[in-house]
Amino acid sequence: MGIKIEIIGIGDELITGRVLDQNAGYAAARLHSFGFEVRTIVLIGDQPRIIRSALKQAGKRSDAVLVTGGLGGTLDDITIDVVSRVFRRPLVLHPGLQGQIRRSLTKKAIPWDPKFEKIAWLPEGVELFHPRPKACGFMMNENGKPFFFLPGFPTEMERALDRQVLPYLLHHYRGQEVVRQRVYNIFGLLEPEINEKFKDLELRFKSLRIGFYPNFPENQLTVSVHSEKALWADRLLDSIEKVVEERLTEHLISKHGQTLEEVIGELLVKKKQTLAVAESCTGGLIGHRITSVPGSSDYFDRSLVVYSNKAKTELLDIPKRILSRHGAVSEKTALLMAEGIRKRSGSDLGLAVTGIAGPGGGTSEKPVGTVWIALSTGQGNKAGHFLFNGQRNQIKILTAYTALNWVRSYLLDDTFLFSD
Amino acid sequence: MGIKIEIIGIGDELITGRVLDQNAGYAAARLHSFGFEVRTIVLIGDQPRIIRSALKQAGKRSDAVLVTGGLGGTLDDITIDVVSRVFRRPLVLHPGLQGQIRRSLTKKAIPWDPKFEKIAWLPEGVELFHPRPKACGFMMNENGKPFFFLPGFPTEMERALDRQVLPYLLHHYRGQEVVRQRVYNIFGLLEPEINEKFKDLELRFKSLRIGFYPNFPENQLTVSVHSEKALWADRLLDSIEKVVEERLTEHLISKHGQTLEEVIGELLVKKKQTLAVAESCTGGLIGHRITSVPGSSDYFDRSLVVYSNKAKTELLDIPKRILSRHGAVSEKTALLMAEGIRKRSGSDLGLAVTGIAGPGGGTSEKPVGTVWIALSTGQGNKAGHFLFNGQRNQIKILTAYTALNWVRSYLLDDTFLFSD
Repeated sequence: MGIKIEIIGIGDELITGRVLDQNAGYAAARLHSFGFEVRTIVLIGDQPRIIRSALKQAGKRSDAVLVTGGLGGTLDDITIDVVSRVFRRPLVLHPGLQGQIRRSLTKKAIPWDPKFEKIAWLPEGVELFHPRPKACGFMMNENGKPFFFLPGFPTEMERALDRQVLPYLLHHYRGQEVVRQRVYNIFGLLEPEINEKFKDLELRFKSLRIGFYPNFPENQLTVSVHSEKALWADRLLDSIEKVVEERLTEHLISKHGQTLEEVIGELLVKKKQTLAVAESCTGGLIGHRITSVPGSSDYFDRSLVVYSNKAKTELLDIPKRILSRHGAVSEKTALLMAEGIRKRSGSDLGLAVTGIAGPGGGTSEKPVGTVWIALSTGQGNKAGHFLFNGQRNQIKILTAYTALNWVRSYLLDDTFLFSD
Repeated sequence: MGIKIEIIGIGDELITGRVLDQNAGYAAARLHSFGFEVRTIVLIGDQPRIIRSALKQAGKRSDAVLVTGGLGGTLDDITIDVVSRVFRRPLVLHPGLQGQIRRSLTKKAIPWDPKFEKIAWLPEGVELFHPRPKACGFMMNENGKPFFFLPGFPTEMERALDRQVLPYLLHHYRGQEVVRQRVYNIFGLLEPEINEKFKDLELRFKSLRIGFYPNFPENQLTVSVHSEKALWADRLLDSIEKVVEERLTEHLISKHGQTLEEVIGELLVKKKQTLAVAESCTGGLIGHRITSVPGSSDYFDRSLVVYSNKAKTELLDIPKRILSRHGAVSEKTALLMAEGIRKRSGSDLGLAVTGIAGPGGGTSEKPVGTVWIALSTGQGNKAGHFLFNGQRNQIKILTAYTALNWVRSYLLDDTFLFSD
C-alpha cells in the first residue's frame, strides 16, 4: 500500500463558509495524481484546542500530514504556537528570516516594529521553505513522519506544494505503489444501471477501483488501479477501457474527462465542418457551451436565440402560418429553424431546439419539458421529440446537452441522420 | 453557548480532488448564519473503515452531525451499510420509498428490476426526508444527538438543509429564540473590503451575526439576528438594512437573495421595457441568464450570438471597414452592435458585448480579458471598456454579469447613460 496522507486546513473562514476551501482540494488532486493516497481532509477554525487535537490525531493515523493556513502574522493565526506546544519544540528566532524581514521593511521604508518579527519565531528544528518574509512554510519530522506547514494563500500554497512537498514525498517514498486513473463521461444511464454494468470488475481485479459520481446531466466514471508496477497498471487500464467502451456503447461521451463540447470541437476540426445554432428554449446555453472551448471560433459562427415568435419569423423566416398551425414547439418549426440557420449562416451543420422549459406555458398536449431538437446537414435533416423532467434550468441543460450530443452522434456516424 | 456541529462529506471524488466540495462550505455558511457553530469539516472517501471511524468520532465530540454524499444506489455509496453497522440498525425496506420508486419507473416506462430497490433499504428507525425516488436524505437520533444524512448532489443537499435540517435545529436548540435572516447579493467588492465595511456591527450588537460567502462573481452577505422577540429582531434587521444600503451603494445587487437577472426582469416589467442582446465573447451566456427567469419571454425577444466577423456583418451590418480598422473588440463595434440589435429587434434596450475570452487571441494592445460593453436606449448610447482577470469561463461570466448589471443600473437611474 502507498503512504496515507492527511490534509488539515486551518482558518475560521473555512468553517464559517466565508471562503470555500480550494487548497485542500488542489493538494488532494496533485497528491493523488502522483500516486499518493489522501485519506482525510479536515477543515477547522483557529482554535488552539481543536488544532492540537487535529494534529495529534493526524500524526497517529497517517504517514504524512500537510497543513495549510494559519502561518501569517495576524491575531487568529495561532498555528505556530500550537505546533510548538504539541510537539514540544520551543519557538526560536530564525535569524535568516529575521534578516529578510528587516531588509524588506527597510526597502519599503517601513519603520521597524517588534510585531513584524513575530513570524520569524518558529518551532525549533523545523526546516524552512525558501526563507523569505511572510508565509514561507516549513516542514519537520516527528517520529519519522513528515509534517508540512504551508501558507493558506492559494498561489503560495501551490508553489510550496509543487517545489517542496511533492519532491520530498517522491524522493522518500518512491518505489512504492502508484495509482493510475482514467475518467469517462457518461450520458443517458441511471446510476443503478451504471453500477449494474461494472460491479463485476472490482470483484475480478483486486487492485481495481470503480467510482462514479453525478455531474448533471452526466455521470463521471473513474477507473483506478494501484500497483507497484506502473506498466502493469497501465496495461490493466487499457484492457478495462475496452470493456468500458463495449458496455457503454453510445452512452460513453468521452474517455479522458473531456466535456461534450470539447469532443464536438475536436470532431468538427477533424472533419472540417462548421456549426451554427438556432435556439429557443435554451436561450443561448448551447452557444455558451460551444464557446466554452478555446478555439471554438474555428468551427462556430453564430447562434440565433429566437426567443419570441417575432424573432423566429424575422430572423429565420419561419412562416407565421406554421407557428399558428403547428406551434413554436413542433417538428415543423424545429426543422425549419435548423435548415434556416444552416443555409443562412453558410455553415455545414445547423442545430435547432424549441421547447417548453416551464414552469408555465405547458398544456395537456404539450406539457412542460416538451422539446423538439433538429439537425440539418447537407445530407439531410432529422428531428426528434423529447419530454424532459425537472426544473426550468434542468430542462434547459438537458435540452442543450441532448442537442449537442446529436451533433456528436452525427459526426461519429452520419447514418445517425436516418436512424430512429 | 450554541451547539457544536460537525460536517462529514463522503465521496472518493472529494479526496482525489476531482470534485471540489462545495456542500460542506455551503452548509457551514448556512449553519453559521443561523448562529450554529460548525467545529470541524471532515472530507473522506468511500471506505467503510474510515466512514465508520469518522461517524463514531463525530458522535463523541459534537452535538449534531451532518453527513453529505454517499446515498445513491451505486457501488461506492456504502454510507448506508456503514451507518447500519455502526449504529446497529438493520436495513429495512422502506415501503413508502419503494412505492415511489415503482411509480416513478412506471411513469418513465422503465421495466422493474430489483436493482432499483436498493435505495429503498434504510437503517431501522430513521426518519426519511420527503420520501421520493433517489437521494432523499434522512435523519436519526443517537443518544440524543441528531445525525442528518443528506444527498451529495448540491441542489438536493441545499433543499434538504433548508427544509429539514435548519428547521429541526432551530426548533430543538433555539428554545424560544427565533432567528431572522436577510440575504444580500454583492458585486464588485473583494472579501476583505466587505469585511472592513461590516466588522463593527457584530461588536455593536451581540445578537447579530454577519456572514458572507463567495458565489462567483457575487458575494452573498447574510445578516442574522437571534432573539426571543421576533418583532425586535425584525426591527433591528430593518435598521441594519439601512446601514447595508448606505455602505454598499451600487455594489448591492439585490436584497432578498434574488439573482441579478430576476432583478432586471422585475425592473423591465415594471418599466414596461423590452431587451434584446448582441453577444460575441459570451457566446450566448447573457441570453441564457436572462431566460433562466420564468416569464422572461415577456420582455426578452432575442439574442444574436455573432461570434464571427462574418456574423457581425451579416446580422448586424457592422461595416467590414470598422472591423478591420478598429477591430471586433472595440468601442465602435460594441456601440454599433448595441444600436443595431435594438433597432432591428424593435426592443427598447439593446445590450452588446465583445471581448477576448482567451486563452489565445490576446495582443499587447488588447490582452486577454479586454472587453467592450455597450448599451443602446432611446435616450442615448453608452460604451465601456473592461479588463477582466481569470480563465476563459470566468471572463465570460464576468462579462455577462457586468453587462446585465449595466441594464440594472440604467433601469434604476437613466442618468447612468451619461455618467462615467
